[in-house]
Amino acid sequence: MAQRITLLTDFGTRDGYVAAMKGIIASICPTATIDDASHDLPPGDVVQAAFTLRRYWSLYPPGTVHLIVVDPGVGTERRALVTSRRYQREAQSATFHGRDVFAPVAAHVACGVALEDLGPVISDPVQLELPSPDIKASSVRGQVICVDHFGNLITNIPAALLGAAPKVAVDGRAVVLRETYGQGELGQPLALVNSDGLLEIAVRDGSAAVALRAAYGAVVEIMTEKKAGT
Amino acid sequence: MAQRITLLTDFGTRDGYVAAMKGIIASICPTATIDDASHDLPPGDVVQAAFTLRRYWSLYPPGTVHLIVVDPGVGTERRALVTSRRYQREAQSATFHGRDVFAPVAAHVACGVALEDLGPVISDPVQLELPSPDIKASSVRGQVICVDHFGNLITNIPAALLGAAPKVAVDGRAVVLRETYGQGELGQPLALVNSDGLLEIAVRDGSAAVALRAAYGAVVEIMTEKKAGT
Amino acid sequence: MAQRITLLTDFGTRDGYVAAMKGIIASICPTATIDDASHDLPPGDVVQAAFTLRRYWSLYPPGTVHLIVVDPGVGTERRALVTSRRYQREAQSATFHGRDVFAPVAAHVACGVALEDLGPVISDPVQLELPSPDIKASSVRGQVICVDHFGNLITNIPAALLGAAPKVAVDGRAVVLRETYGQGELGQPLALVNSDGLLEIAVRDGSAAVALRAAYGAVVEIMTEKKAGT
Repeated sequence: MAQRITLLTDFGTRDGYVAAMKGIIASICPTATIDDASHDLPPGDVVQAAFTLRRYWSLYPPGTVHLIVVDPGVGTERRALVTSRRYQREAQSATFHGRDVFAPVAAHVACGVALEDLGPVISDPVQLELPSPDIKASSVRGQVICVDHFGNLITNIPAALLGAAPKVAVDGRAVVLRETYGQGELGQPLALVNSDGLLEIAVRDGSAAVALRAAYGAVVEIMTEKKAGT
Repeated sequence: MAQRITLLTDFGTRDGYVAAMKGIIASICPTATIDDASHDLPPGDVVQAAFTLRRYWSLYPPGTVHLIVVDPGVGTERRALVTSRRYQREAQSATFHGRDVFAPVAAHVACGVALEDLGPVISDPVQLELPSPDIKASSVRGQVICVDHFGNLITNIPAALLGAAPKVAVDGRAVVLRETYGQGELGQPLALVNSDGLLEIAVRDGSAAVALRAAYGAVVEIMTEKKAGT
Repeated sequence: MAQRITLLTDFGTRDGYVAAMKGIIASICPTATIDDASHDLPPGDVVQAAFTLRRYWSLYPPGTVHLIVVDPGVGTERRALVTSRRYQREAQSATFHGRDVFAPVAAHVACGVALEDLGPVISDPVQLELPSPDIKASSVRGQVICVDHFGNLITNIPAALLGAAPKVAVDGRAVVLRETYGQGELGQPLALVNSDGLLEIAVRDGSAAVALRAAYGAVVEIMTEKKAGT
């Protein structure tokens, strides 16, 4: 059985760019299963692409081919990690490498071409720099790094940094810490550890982004409990 | 051949929550076919979810697994009809039961686990209460229960209640009764029996919701013909 | 192996109309692979449907069934190219031929019914009239025919008409000609030959539609180089 290919892009679906990639895959590796992950990432936003990818890639079985095309610099000098001209489309445009380079390569891999046949190993890929929380003795200062479809504010503060009886504030406003959305009061923001293992600010049956007028970059602070006598 | 699984959620696709469920399914039951039904239901709106589901579930072949995750109370005490801890994900979050509970169970069912292995039969499920039309001798008073993608206003009045030569009014405004969209005049609202078998208010090549400034809950009245001499 | 079916509609996915077509296909031809091309075409816009279809249909393998339902005149006298009542759904609505006529026919074709069994050959299909560029000795006058998801302005001017050292103007405003998006200056519009082989106006990491306040129908002019001495 050929492998499964997941697709993650910022193309939208309206124009047929995604369908062009699917057609290429179907022609090269007709037995591959194609899963749409998402095609409505914010255009060119590699940070949000990384967060979306983080939520699903490891849940797929080993051998799955994950094809991500979010490419603010198409046609410029950015370097693909694995490609060989041999496995690309013969006719190439200057502007649509998802169709002409990446979809055909993904299809060949799904149908059995080994990664080592795609080119030399690259040991110094460009790394995405994500903001890290600022950790002090009795506080952690992080930020909102993703606002999801529901208006939940997802932070860069992992659960392990919460400590005992933490107090949480978003842009200086205190919010209660709960375990589930359902424990919140209607319209009132709450903080919880979400399914990514990160601190998240939410509003039960509502949007925390709207309720708190908060967006990417909003400051989230944790005051952790001090020990008795100190 | 493993069964087919359809997915219906209010997750949107942007964040990768749907892809996480697909990854779980692909890992547990790789031969299952996954059909996206919709992921852009209004958040938490179980009434609209029910109407969307009503349009397609019975058209699928017997044995299809229909997975619907529209869950305003995730993490609270609502009761799933069929689950067994054995078929759920080992690591569980408090906030994403679509990934941790329902997707794995659906995948196991698609790959052959019998429903009776998922837990005891539940005979008293919570029922969704939908508004019923008010039926009188010579009139029916219903309401708009769904505004679709085209701005069509779909009512809770089944075709069987229309009677002979009915007169239709939306929020007190008369609209003509026709058989197809194409029989309407441009910009003028019309009523017809739609593909759900329900009375629908539409505008040819336009939006009835915009033309009539009507939304969920708008009153639709039918005056049916009285017999001669009465 | 049954064939692949691609779906292109203006239905949106929210209401379950697409899922209804998938259910019909799954019931008639369960081994067919279904690829979503797009479901968010502008309602009834057959011109944009044609441009979207143009981007992908020829990239699919021969034998693929391409099902397109963008039907401003549903229920009126427009004529389907290939249908036979025998392969349609028994129960039919007046308003949803995607479900009742076209999906079942596509499914039967994918599972082996020959096109000639669907009805007589039609030799005079209604043709879509698209605007053609106006070509003169030293200039070409075309127009924007598609604004894509990124705000790129795609014209009806093929690369072959560009000539040597062309000067490009959009609504009278000059734009530079480049080869890739990445060669543009941030915020400044540029022209290039796109992946459709057509002249396109774009803005690097931005929207040309916004930057130039241009939409479908905007005039794009090419002044081609005159020979020396003339």
